[in-house]
Amino acid sequence: MKEKLQQLKEILAELADLNGAAAILGWDQQTYMPPGAAELRGNQLGTLGRIVHDKGTSPEVGKLLEELKPYAAGLDPDSDDARLVKVTAKDYEKALRVPADHIVKFAEVTAVAQGAWVEARQKSDFSIFLPHLEKVVELRREYVSFFPEVDHPYDAILDDFEPGMKTADVKAIFDGLRPKQVELIKAISQKPQVDDGFLHQPFDEKKQWDFGVEIITKFGYDWKSGRQDKAPHPFTQGAGRTDVRITTRVDPNFLNPMLFGTMHECGHALYGLGSAPALDRTGLDGGASLAVHESQSRMWENLVGRSLPMWECFYPRLQEVFPQLKNIPLDKFYKGINKVQPSFIRVEADEATYNMHIMLRLEIEIALMEGKVAVKDLPALWNAKMQEYLGVTPPNDAKGVLQDIHWSGGMVGYFSTYALGNLMSAQLWEKINQQIPNLPDQVRAGKFEELLGWLRANIHAHGRKFEPQELIQKVTGSRIDPAPYMRYLTKKYSEIYGL
Amino acid sequence: MKEKLQQLKEILAELADLNGAAAILGWDQQTYMPPGAAELRGNQLGTLGRIVHDKGTSPEVGKLLEELKPYAAGLDPDSDDARLVKVTAKDYEKALRVPADHIVKFAEVTAVAQGAWVEARQKSDFSIFLPHLEKVVELRREYVSFFPEVDHPYDAILDDFEPGMKTADVKAIFDGLRPKQVELIKAISQKPQVDDGFLHQPFDEKKQWDFGVEIITKFGYDWKSGRQDKAPHPFTQGAGRTDVRITTRVDPNFLNPMLFGTMHECGHALYGLGSAPALDRTGLDGGASLAVHESQSRMWENLVGRSLPMWECFYPRLQEVFPQLKNIPLDKFYKGINKVQPSFIRVEADEATYNMHIMLRLEIEIALMEGKVAVKDLPALWNAKMQEYLGVTPPNDAKGVLQDIHWSGGMVGYFSTYALGNLMSAQLWEKINQQIPNLPDQVRAGKFEELLGWLRANIHAHGRKFEPQELIQKVTGSRIDPAPYMRYLTKKYSEIYGL
Repeated sequence: MKEKLQQLKEILAELADLNGAAAILGWDQQTYMPPGAAELRGNQLGTLGRIVHDKGTSPEVGKLLEELKPYAAGLDPDSDDARLVKVTAKDYEKALRVPADHIVKFAEVTAVAQGAWVEARQKSDFSIFLPHLEKVVELRREYVSFFPEVDHPYDAILDDFEPGMKTADVKAIFDGLRPKQVELIKAISQKPQVDDGFLHQPFDEKKQWDFGVEIITKFGYDWKSGRQDKAPHPFTQGAGRTDVRITTRVDPNFLNPMLFGTMHECGHALYGLGSAPALDRTGLDGGASLAVHESQSRMWENLVGRSLPMWECFYPRLQEVFPQLKNIPLDKFYKGINKVQPSFIRVEADEATYNMHIMLRLEIEIALMEGKVAVKDLPALWNAKMQEYLGVTPPNDAKGVLQDIHWSGGMVGYFSTYALGNLMSAQLWEKINQQIPNLPDQVRAGKFEELLGWLRANIHAHGRKFEPQELIQKVTGSRIDPAPYMRYLTKKYSEIYGL
Repeated sequence: MKEKLQQLKEILAELADLNGAAAILGWDQQTYMPPGAAELRGNQLGTLGRIVHDKGTSPEVGKLLEELKPYAAGLDPDSDDARLVKVTAKDYEKALRVPADHIVKFAEVTAVAQGAWVEARQKSDFSIFLPHLEKVVELRREYVSFFPEVDHPYDAILDDFEPGMKTADVKAIFDGLRPKQVELIKAISQKPQVDDGFLHQPFDEKKQWDFGVEIITKFGYDWKSGRQDKAPHPFTQGAGRTDVRITTRVDPNFLNPMLFGTMHECGHALYGLGSAPALDRTGLDGGASLAVHESQSRMWENLVGRSLPMWECFYPRLQEVFPQLKNIPLDKFYKGINKVQPSFIRVEADEATYNMHIMLRLEIEIALMEGKVAVKDLPALWNAKMQEYLGVTPPNDAKGVLQDIHWSGGMVGYFSTYALGNLMSAQLWEKINQQIPNLPDQVRAGKFEELLGWLRANIHAHGRKFEPQELIQKVTGSRIDPAPYMRYLTKKYSEIYGL
């Protein structure tokens, strides 16, 4: 049976290599690729994806998995090998359900839809995107039909991004969160507002870049297996445990994008770099889910990066680099980087309002999958919900329903992971602070080794071995729970806004 | 039959995509890859290479080719489809001859040999490299044994780099060239020597880079499908017709490496960018052989780049960028960049002495394949030939037999292509100047469109359709001939050195 397991591992190693190659091609596509190579790159990625799909759903893999299941049942259920068989079998069974025709059609439709979305957003004209989004939604509903056993149609697509997560759970979590978060935002809006004008002024680009590098080096980013490049939409790309690259963008007139974007991507990268070497080239390295990934990026960006201890440590250095901040006291800086202001654009939202952007999208996605709302009605629905949750109405669709790229690429079911990541980050943070009581002092001293060590041991090392709910239960003793996040937000903003 | 051809083309497109992916991974490996990813990258490239080999030698491909051969025989023999079947069949038959065991062993031996070579060169100690080179040579002789029909053992390996080229032809070419070139070098050495000291002084790195970019933009390098990055050992990497990247290096105290290195790599890139779109993703795009490739790079570097008309055009601009050249007249500059000086290192050699470095290596390689020389005797043999051909003896093996990386990577049979490329470049140049009589005037005016157009139509567009001898015959009316190169060298150096 060891031999069968070895055979399976050899196939998985091959798939990991191909996925790693595709990751580098994807990174290159968004950083250095000459523009004329776009079609060629599409072909290359298409071929790699098809080979991965064909090899991953081959009868040989199915047979090995069937033979290995009884063997795995006799192992420690948390062991690498037992999990390898379990996770691979789930991947295999899901992939088998989806006909090749659907995959091809999905690729074709989304390729065209992305072009249409770019044009629609530029012109702020939803009608350009409408017929394409209708096709995307139709295909997503067809995808759902391949999984007739699900409790709710949205479960089928959610599971691709958050393995094991149910729509009912997400709804329950967000239903509990929504009124509290709306109430908090309202309370904040009634208090004197924070000034962050000093963050909007010229900051030398090279100095910004270097400061970001300085910070994430302290965080523990391993440059031996990483690098940072510029990208208009920053992202992290891992091609394997020893090659996890980040990107950032630098706004010459606003400090936040570089500062918090760099920390955010570093958080993702630390996760990818921390998986146990035993999981290399098994397909089980990397992250448990998008939400768990986001819990790491948001933790370093917000719970660490926007905390007072962080800037008690680093603000003097920041002032040294940017003398224009010399007359801004720490307290004012801290409040400025935590300013709450309902706005139209999700990616620019602050911690207090961010989740509202997500809930709006999630509700729309669920309604689309349920067939309860027509695509053509989305702009009006979007604006109504923006008004209800955030008290603002987008002036046009470019700043409304057309702002995100996700749906044009077929990524329906993705958004909730951003909010779930926020919730998990606070839930983990409470646990970490129980177990490392002097963590604020460590951060104040610019020491992050113990924090990173804790994350490595409890989250990173496990890779994809556990589903998100399992993992969070294992680590915190309970399933995903919005209470820690509300406690965190309430405490933080009560201090800042004097609620 | 159209359908069978289509099936073959689909497989070839898949192989082209995988090779293109490997090309980007290779480019990344030498430019931006974090050092910790070396082993991971080895796995990724190994997997891609294995899949390409398996798919390329599958019985399906063999069957399609057998079925298509009679069909192709009825087509115009120079048509894309006839050539596709012919070239693919040759690739297939060669690949089938080599057992998988040999490929694996070769990869293992050369991976270790490269590490040993690095150490041996650093320490200038041939004994460290000796046992590894012995294994490499043994494996190359084993490879030769898979092709028992060849006239000469060296033919089998030469054909991998120069399809259709015979050892007897190469020997005849070089036997005719050697005495004339030795004589020329001797004649030059007896004349007053040229001063190139002004090329060895500080030159701002950024300005060097920008000047190189300016030149190759004039040459016609298409930045939409290309880019330039820094690399310690400059190279050109093509991943397909629409993505051909170059690299360069900048020496802050010597102008030549950037100047002529950039033009050289641009020459390679123009070839890859110029293949006919109909050959995209067929495996027939790219270059006919290494020598034909080198004919293009050397033409832009030397026949254009080191010519007097070139600098009649660009020298004023160069002086503007580098005012330290203001008091160096054009004539002195032109002589300086064409200085002849026998030296130890091939990659630093001038046009007059370069081929001697190659002949020495070729003779050694042929003797190794014939079994007429032992690996342990190479250092002494090397030094004796250096003295005979160039009148200098390397002070140590690092500057002698250990200077090139090629043999450690198993590339025995490769060197002759450098010299053949030089010969072809001059042969083509004579033809071009017959057909574009005012070419020197065009170069003097910084106009390269007609030259590039000629190369595109006569060389680039054909990709790998023709073997090098076929191609050169087609274009110039004769096979590879050293006479034009000797005419070129003799005329040029007679003027410079007053022979």
